[in-house]
Amino acid sequence: MTVTADLAISLDGYVAGPNVSLDNPGGDGAEPLFEWIHGLASWRERQGLAGGAENRDSELMREWFDATGAVVMGRTMYETGADFWGEDPPFRAPVFVLTHRPHPVLVKQGGTTFTFVTDGVHDALDRARAAAGDRNVDIAGGASTVRQYLGAGLIDELHLHVVPALLGGGLRLFDGPAAAGPRALEPLSVIHTPLATHLKYRFPK
Amino acid sequence: MTVTADLAISLDGYVAGPNVSLDNPGGDGAEPLFEWIHGLASWRERQGLAGGAENRDSELMREWFDATGAVVMGRTMYETGADFWGEDPPFRAPVFVLTHRPHPVLVKQGGTTFTFVTDGVHDALDRARAAAGDRNVDIAGGASTVRQYLGAGLIDELHLHVVPALLGGGLRLFDGPAAAGPRALEPLSVIHTPLATHLKYRFPK
Repeated sequence: MTVTADLAISLDGYVAGPNVSLDNPGGDGAEPLFEWIHGLASWRERQGLAGGAENRDSELMREWFDATGAVVMGRTMYETGADFWGEDPPFRAPVFVLTHRPHPVLVKQGGTTFTFVTDGVHDALDRARAAAGDRNVDIAGGASTVRQYLGAGLIDELHLHVVPALLGGGLRLFDGPAAAGPRALEPLSVIHTPLATHLKYRFPK
Repeated sequence: MTVTADLAISLDGYVAGPNVSLDNPGGDGAEPLFEWIHGLASWRERQGLAGGAENRDSELMREWFDATGAVVMGRTMYETGADFWGEDPPFRAPVFVLTHRPHPVLVKQGGTTFTFVTDGVHDALDRARAAAGDRNVDIAGGASTVRQYLGAGLIDELHLHVVPALLGGGLRLFDGPAAAGPRALEPLSVIHTPLATHLKYRFPK
């Protein structure tokens, strides 16, 4: 079982634009981070939409969907995404939401459940591991949630989709110490397309 | 004639570690950024050293040396590098050093000259262009010098050698607005080796 963090990131290191809020979850000018995803057949399938491009990027996203048995996310990501995801969210797997406010489990269509975890990052990960079976747990975001897991040394693989754009500001994935001191990573693969450079790294045990 | 900026950068966006000073030009814990270079045959040749690895990384560095007809750098990079470069610096081309203090031209062996430019980034670039002939001008560093040229829209191609390490702190290449607003880049190539992921991007005109 592998714990992944899989994010789209600009070449200058931002995972959202400036002025992120509940009404503006991607932040200003963040279209380059996300618009390439919306045309992919595999992404559209999960939204219940037909069509889209069957390219290498779409395959990679399908691989991620297929490999992921459970998801952990922060409360802000949940709150900003919930309306968009609607009654048939794209995860089709158990999702564990880090929060301070207890909330009953939400059961959606297609296999997605939202379980609200108030006992912290370790507990959320333990529950996600138990739910994932032999598939991966993905720490989906936002940036501060991924940073907490990175800082605690709980991420096995970092998958970054580097989009060819400079945002010039916003929310950084890497902001302050990501882990204790400098840390070497093992490069696993790189796949380069006109849309993004897809990098996979493993943290040595 | 192409203006390049060619830098080694950690996956978390740092081009030097924390606590950079004249005595500690790479900053603390910056070995992952630079140590991979020291074993390359092409780099060793330029230092007057035999041996080293003849691999794809070495070829890329040789391509950069061969393509570069003039170099622009900041004063701190010059001051921290001068002793190390010695009387036969690796550039073998005219180098223009941005400074506020006038200083006579220094003529070194092997074709390297250091010309101290007090009239700002545009003047330094103009002089480097004139000296480069039909080869490239490289904006060599440090980070703040590259940022000034990026911010002024004067870089044509950005070449990043992403080393598989998280430094967790230090000097960022991208810190604050790199250019006016979000800016799309055209991916030119990616070459992936165990040592680094070599990315080339072009700024659209």
